[in-house]
Amino acid sequence: MFYALEFAAVLSAAIYGVLRGLRKDFDIVGLISVSFAVAFGGGTLRDVLLDRRPLFWVENEAYLWTVLVVAVIGAVLPRQVAKLEPWLALPDALGLGLWSVAGTVVAVEAGMSPLVSAVFGVMTGSFGGVIGDIICNETPSLFRKSPLYATCALAGSVTYLALDAAGVSEWTSQPAGVAVAFALRMVAVQFNLHVPVKTLQDK
Amino acid sequence: MFYALEFAAVLSAAIYGVLRGLRKDFDIVGLISVSFAVAFGGGTLRDVLLDRRPLFWVENEAYLWTVLVVAVIGAVLPRQVAKLEPWLALPDALGLGLWSVAGTVVAVEAGMSPLVSAVFGVMTGSFGGVIGDIICNETPSLFRKSPLYATCALAGSVTYLALDAAGVSEWTSQPAGVAVAFALRMVAVQFNLHVPVKTLQDK
Amino acid sequence: MFYALEFAAVLSAAIYGVLRGLRKDFDIVGLISVSFAVAFGGGTLRDVLLDRRPLFWVENEAYLWTVLVVAVIGAVLPRQVAKLEPWLALPDALGLGLWSVAGTVVAVEAGMSPLVSAVFGVMTGSFGGVIGDIICNETPSLFRKSPLYATCALAGSVTYLALDAAGVSEWTSQPAGVAVAFALRMVAVQFNLHVPVKTLQDK
Repeated sequence: MFYALEFAAVLSAAIYGVLRGLRKDFDIVGLISVSFAVAFGGGTLRDVLLDRRPLFWVENEAYLWTVLVVAVIGAVLPRQVAKLEPWLALPDALGLGLWSVAGTVVAVEAGMSPLVSAVFGVMTGSFGGVIGDIICNETPSLFRKSPLYATCALAGSVTYLALDAAGVSEWTSQPAGVAVAFALRMVAVQFNLHVPVKTLQDK
Repeated sequence: MFYALEFAAVLSAAIYGVLRGLRKDFDIVGLISVSFAVAFGGGTLRDVLLDRRPLFWVENEAYLWTVLVVAVIGAVLPRQVAKLEPWLALPDALGLGLWSVAGTVVAVEAGMSPLVSAVFGVMTGSFGGVIGDIICNETPSLFRKSPLYATCALAGSVTYLALDAAGVSEWTSQPAGVAVAFALRMVAVQFNLHVPVKTLQDK
Repeated sequence: MFYALEFAAVLSAAIYGVLRGLRKDFDIVGLISVSFAVAFGGGTLRDVLLDRRPLFWVENEAYLWTVLVVAVIGAVLPRQVAKLEPWLALPDALGLGLWSVAGTVVAVEAGMSPLVSAVFGVMTGSFGGVIGDIICNETPSLFRKSPLYATCALAGSVTYLALDAAGVSEWTSQPAGVAVAFALRMVAVQFNLHVPVKTLQDK
């Protein structure tokens, strides 16, 4: 179950990375690099902070090939792939949900408390997108522009943790966590939702 | 002694992070994220580079709660908290001093040489502020604008190392290091001091 | 052989870092910091991802002193050092080649597959320059402006791997890898070469 989750997370993030890179007219090496960074950034941070080796993409070389294939397809058929751009939010939301749950699962397995596991879920889920933003020289959307990014990661992580604590099988709890984060993010993007918060401008 | 030091460092950095985030009108998730990043960035880098696990904020969950509480107070009472802004330099200088010494102490305990320990002190002390700058999309003040940032960290670190080598108790040497870094930084900010250096413009 | 390689890589990167810092009128602390970051960034990332401790610059304190001396010379004699600026591309290309091969060698020794070792070569080779760009607040040249950066790192890494697999002595295979990356980079900069790639603009 977990490997299917992680593979889907790598694939979604790689597609998201290539679409972002195409929008910026990166060359083929740039496309591969941004796909790598977005697809592996969150999971690598998770593995390093938990002192897990080999890193997930070293242990499972199929992930490396997946990203390479996605990036090369993007470089060879930029026009066709770019037609997917209106759906850019889709792999982004899916990767966010998948990585949030994948980060939480690994932290729980490493013996972390629920609070710490949720922090790992949010970090793993959002770090890939943050790296993508930094590479593309934009303010990380986690912190301002993009609606509810970290909140969605947290919702997915907490959903999984709650179902897991309630004794629900991982075949239900993991997809449920992904679905909650994914759905919340899609709704937030569609309706441009934000956390209501008093700011200094209210003065 | 050391835990009091680390706790004070987390608290100062969290307050500094929240004030920075409020100035940028971050929402509540943004405030929590920037507080986490500023409060835990330096210590996490130190722990990862020294291969220390569990990470200090995993081992001591009270730190996580501290940051959460500070961030939530900032989000709920932004006007009141923002009134603290003229004192922004205070938690910044305090966090700088506390993290510099905390970084040095841990490196010494891990068997590092004085030179390497001083490097760890400077990195741990300044990394949180650098992350805060990057998140807020400003040029890291370490490198240009802000006076003497890394120099203050170095002064605090060296003060502690010298007193420790002279056989002074940690109850004196650690606060002394913090005080030197803090005082130097406050003086530097007040009088806008810089290291005198010949630049290319002198030509 | 390997230590000579690594020492040359540190020295080239430190010189490159100081020249970059001088161009931005950094003060002495800024010069030291940027030299450290550029000279140690790639190798530190490599060591952390491979879980290698002590870090290479902790194990070999001579590297720390080398960077300090280079940075201090840059700060004391900025005019004379700045005259080296027309040759800025030289230490950059040399550092790129040396770090790419040094990253690959260490990954191979840690039991990584050739594909993973090549990824490590590219990451180690290009990360120092990327950090330098971020510190100097420029878009990482890896991804757009600068010709063939990651491609040169890959070429050097693959050359070494191929010669090593063919049973060639490290006294030949390592310098050959460095030479290929260095030469390709110098040619690319000279003639402003890019990977030909269809972009969306071709539409």
